[in-house]
Formats: sequence, structure tokens, C-alpha cells
Amino acid sequence: MSLDLKAWMQAHLERVESALSTGMVAQSPAALGQAMRYAVLDGGKRLRPLLVLATAEAVGDDVSSPAALNAACAIELIHAYSLVHDDMPCMDNDVLRRGKPTVHVQFGQAQALLAGDALQTLAFEFLTPLDGRVLAAVQAACVALLARASGYQGMAGGQAIDLASVGQRLSEDELRQMHRLKTGALLLCSVQMGAACVPGVSDSVQAALCRFGEALGLAFQVVDDVLDVTADSATLGKTAGKDEAADKPTYVALMGLEGAKAFADALAAQATQALTDTGLPEVRLAALRALTAMVVERNN
Amino acid sequence: MSLDLKAWMQAHLERVESALSTGMVAQSPAALGQAMRYAVLDGGKRLRPLLVLATAEAVGDDVSSPAALNAACAIELIHAYSLVHDDMPCMDNDVLRRGKPTVHVQFGQAQALLAGDALQTLAFEFLTPLDGRVLAAVQAACVALLARASGYQGMAGGQAIDLASVGQRLSEDELRQMHRLKTGALLLCSVQMGAACVPGVSDSVQAALCRFGEALGLAFQVVDDVLDVTADSATLGKTAGKDEAADKPTYVALMGLEGAKAFADALAAQATQALTDTGLPEVRLAALRALTAMVVERNN
Repeated sequence: MSLDLKAWMQAHLERVESALSTGMVAQSPAALGQAMRYAVLDGGKRLRPLLVLATAEAVGDDVSSPAALNAACAIELIHAYSLVHDDMPCMDNDVLRRGKPTVHVQFGQAQALLAGDALQTLAFEFLTPLDGRVLAAVQAACVALLARASGYQGMAGGQAIDLASVGQRLSEDELRQMHRLKTGALLLCSVQMGAACVPGVSDSVQAALCRFGEALGLAFQVVDDVLDVTADSATLGKTAGKDEAADKPTYVALMGLEGAKAFADALAAQATQALTDTGLPEVRLAALRALTAMVVERNN
Repeated sequence: MSLDLKAWMQAHLERVESALSTGMVAQSPAALGQAMRYAVLDGGKRLRPLLVLATAEAVGDDVSSPAALNAACAIELIHAYSLVHDDMPCMDNDVLRRGKPTVHVQFGQAQALLAGDALQTLAFEFLTPLDGRVLAAVQAACVALLARASGYQGMAGGQAIDLASVGQRLSEDELRQMHRLKTGALLLCSVQMGAACVPGVSDSVQAALCRFGEALGLAFQVVDDVLDVTADSATLGKTAGKDEAADKPTYVALMGLEGAKAFADALAAQATQALTDTGLPEVRLAALRALTAMVVERNN
């Protein structure tokens, strides 16, 4: 990654962090605000927000416009809520996340349940700011995309399949469908919302960006499965080896470690090709290319 | 209630029920769709949807326009999700709701958690239909209202205060603040969304409708506290006496049974006066007046 891209990422991470922090008041009722801040701030790679911002800029967004920043925060809040609820005892029962005790360990299950609920809601508040600076059509389009990517047709649906599939031998098609919903939908949505923040993006550019988002989303999950086997808990910041321990279907189980690694590389190549297919100026695609490399080469 | 109002209510309940059912596909991933449908359909008084529809019609909405129906479904989905999560073992640990086993009893805790999450998301899908029949400005306004009424500044915030207040002696102001958030915010939001579905409602009408919604919301909670003491579980469709058993602060604990009943009547009178203050034609206020009477005179 060139120095410019590091600076781009750093600057945008700071904007996202600051906007998220401002949007969550610690003094909100009882310990709820604290639990929400604990779940969201100072942790995570912020891949989804960076994808939103990089896509918006790729299609010509003015960096200072608030729509993409709001969408970036919103999708991170959805991601964060899903982690809080996923970690709860009735789901994955995990105690470690981003190197810290999970929310229910720190604040109790009832507060974790509420905090997750309120984080989901807050995502939709971010998408509908009251200051008149974001077009109503952009607000409505982003809500429509994020809700459909998060709900029963998206992330929550994927988690339901995941719940039902423990101990099952899934085919590659079934595994792909589960992950397309569980993690892919939100990554694709990051790209779609970024494009939706700039009215007037052509259908062909949108279609190529969708192909990019889909390939990247699947690559992300395949790499996740690889890391669950190859990385240790300290590097991951969460419990390693738990998919295997829980007898969950994974790409490593399906195609072996080397096969899964090769599949991730092939998907990254597809994503990169889709970016080229947009026909957008290469200089505006640099951040999306860098994020693609980051997804495949990450070690946590 | 006159025969016409009974017919009004019946017709609108059928529209809401049908729209909710159409919006939740039983065949959605794994058992998630079934759990969502179980949580929402064939139960509940649908007070919030009826308030949305009655308010929209009061300010001149065309009965056949989809905006108010979508908003009506959306707020019922938020209400339903909150009940699913509230009933879970880490919260109120309740096994009976609307006379049926609660969702986690029927489907397991993990599915109940997911179903609640997906119901919340579905509310925002309903508010942003893709068919182009609802103005983007109306979509954005309804999302802004519903998200703020549901999240940490609204319903979820009230639940956090509730969690923290068990066994505490609250002042009337503190109790009012808790209920203003926990149940009041959503009832007020029903009225506000109804008005927001019709662009161009004057500030003074909106202000009077807000006073109506606030008084009605508090009346609803006071009556709830009274019923928790006076009704049996079979009539309530949920476990009676559980506030007292859990040592929760209530209006009955604060002002005695007769005092609480008198307070509910005073609030109903305030709500009724606020409707008169709107200056809207009396014939268009009839449904809202009937709903107010229903809230105070209900026995479950």
C-alpha cells in the first residue's frame, strides 16, 4: 500500500471514529450508552465503513459530504450489533472479541441484548439525519439497502442458516448461500450504499460495483475460514479454532486449507477485474483496490 | 363505539394483518420466518398501527395510500420485536404472551434473538418500499421518527432505565421519564408517523397531535400498571402480577390503585382535549377518540 493510501485510510478512520463517538452519548439511560460505546469504539478494522467511503469517492463523491460518512457509520453499527448478539450465550457463547471481554461478559446479558438492539436502531438514525444536509432520496435509498442487507433476506437470514447447519455437511452451493447472506450481504451493501450516496451513477457502473462487492464479500468469508484454522486467538482478537470445535461447515472443511486459500485468491482476482470493468478512472479506484488486498492478505 | 367505528377498526385491522403477513415469508431461511410470523401474526390489539392509520386519516390521508399502511406495519414490528426480546430469560423471563408460549419457549433462545433482530430490521424495510409509491421525503421522515422513538433515546433507553430500577423507589418524575421512553415514545411515534405520511400538516396541528400522543402514551402505561394488579393472567394473555412480584416501580405502587385509576382518567381527558385543540373536523377525529377510549377502558 502506498503512503497516500495509508494516509487516506487513517484520515477516514478518524472521521468514522469521531462520528460514531459523537453519535453515542455515554450518559444515555442507565449503562446502555456505555455498553453501546464499548461494543463499537476502539476496535475493529472498519472494513465496511472504509468500503462505503472508498466507493462513494470512486463514483465522484465530494469527500466532505455527510451522506457517505453517515452510511459508513450506519453499516458499522449494524456489524457491531450483530457481533454483540452473536457472542451471547444462547448463540456462540464467546467471551473474547477484539481482544476484550465481550459485551455480555462486561455488562451482563440483558444490557448486551438491549445494546445490540439500540445499535441496530442507531444505524437507521445515522441514515436519516435531521440537519437537511442529505437528500431525502439518498436517505431513503440507503435505508432500503441497509435494511434488506441486514434482515431476514440478508445477514439475519444467514445467521439462521448457520444456526441450523451446525454439524451438517453442506454443499459448496449451500455454504456459499449461507455466507452470501451472513457476511456477504453487508459487504455488498457497503459498496451499494457508497454508490447510492452519489445520485446519477450509471447502471453499468453500479452492476460492476455489485460484482466487486459480491466477490469481495465471499473472499472475506473464505479468508475468515482460513484464519480460523491458521491464526491463534491473540492475533485474531477472538477465539481461534471455534468453527472446527463447533463442527461448523467452512470452506476449509469443504476444500482443504490450500484449496480455500486458492479460492480466496481467485475471488480477489474477480473483485479486481470487476473494478476495472467499472471503467472509472484508476486513480479513483485505488482505495478500493487497496481494501481488496487488505481483505485477502489480513492476518486477523 | 358506534357501528361505523367498529367497521373502521375491523377493516383496518384486516389491512394491517394482511400487509404484515405478506411481508414475512414463512419459507425464509431455516425457522427464522416461522419464528417471525409466530411473534407478530394473530395476536395483539394493534393499537399502534390503528393510531398511525387514524392519525393519517385525521390529517387528510387518502385511505388507499400505502405510506400510512407501511408505517402502521413498521411500528407493530418494532413493538413485536421488543416483546420477543423482553420475554427472553435474560430479561423478564416470561413464558406466556398473548395467551401463547413466548417465542423463545417455542423456537429456542437463539432463534428468538434472531427473530427479534430481523423484525426490527423488517420495520425499516416496510418504511422504504421499492415500488415508488411513497415519496422519498415521507420515507425518510418516517424512518427518522421511528428510529429515534425505538432506540437509546426512546424505547430501548426506557428499557435500560427499567432494568436499572428494579427494587428502587422512583419519584413520579423518574417513573414518568421511564415510561415516556419505554412505552410512550412508540405511541407518540405512531401519531407522528401518521401525520408525517401526509405532507403539509401545519405546525399547530402537529403540536396538538403530539400532546395527544404524549398523554395517550402515559395513560396507556398507567392502565397497564392497574391491569397488572387487577386482571388475571387469562384475561391479560400474559403473566399478571409480575411487576409487583419483581418489585418493579409502578403507578399503583406510587399512588395506590384508586389514585392510578384517577390519573389514567385525567390523562385520557388531556388527550381528548388535545384532539379538540387540533381544530380538525370532528368527523375525522372520531377514530382517534375511539382509540383513546379503548386504551383507558380496556381489560387486557
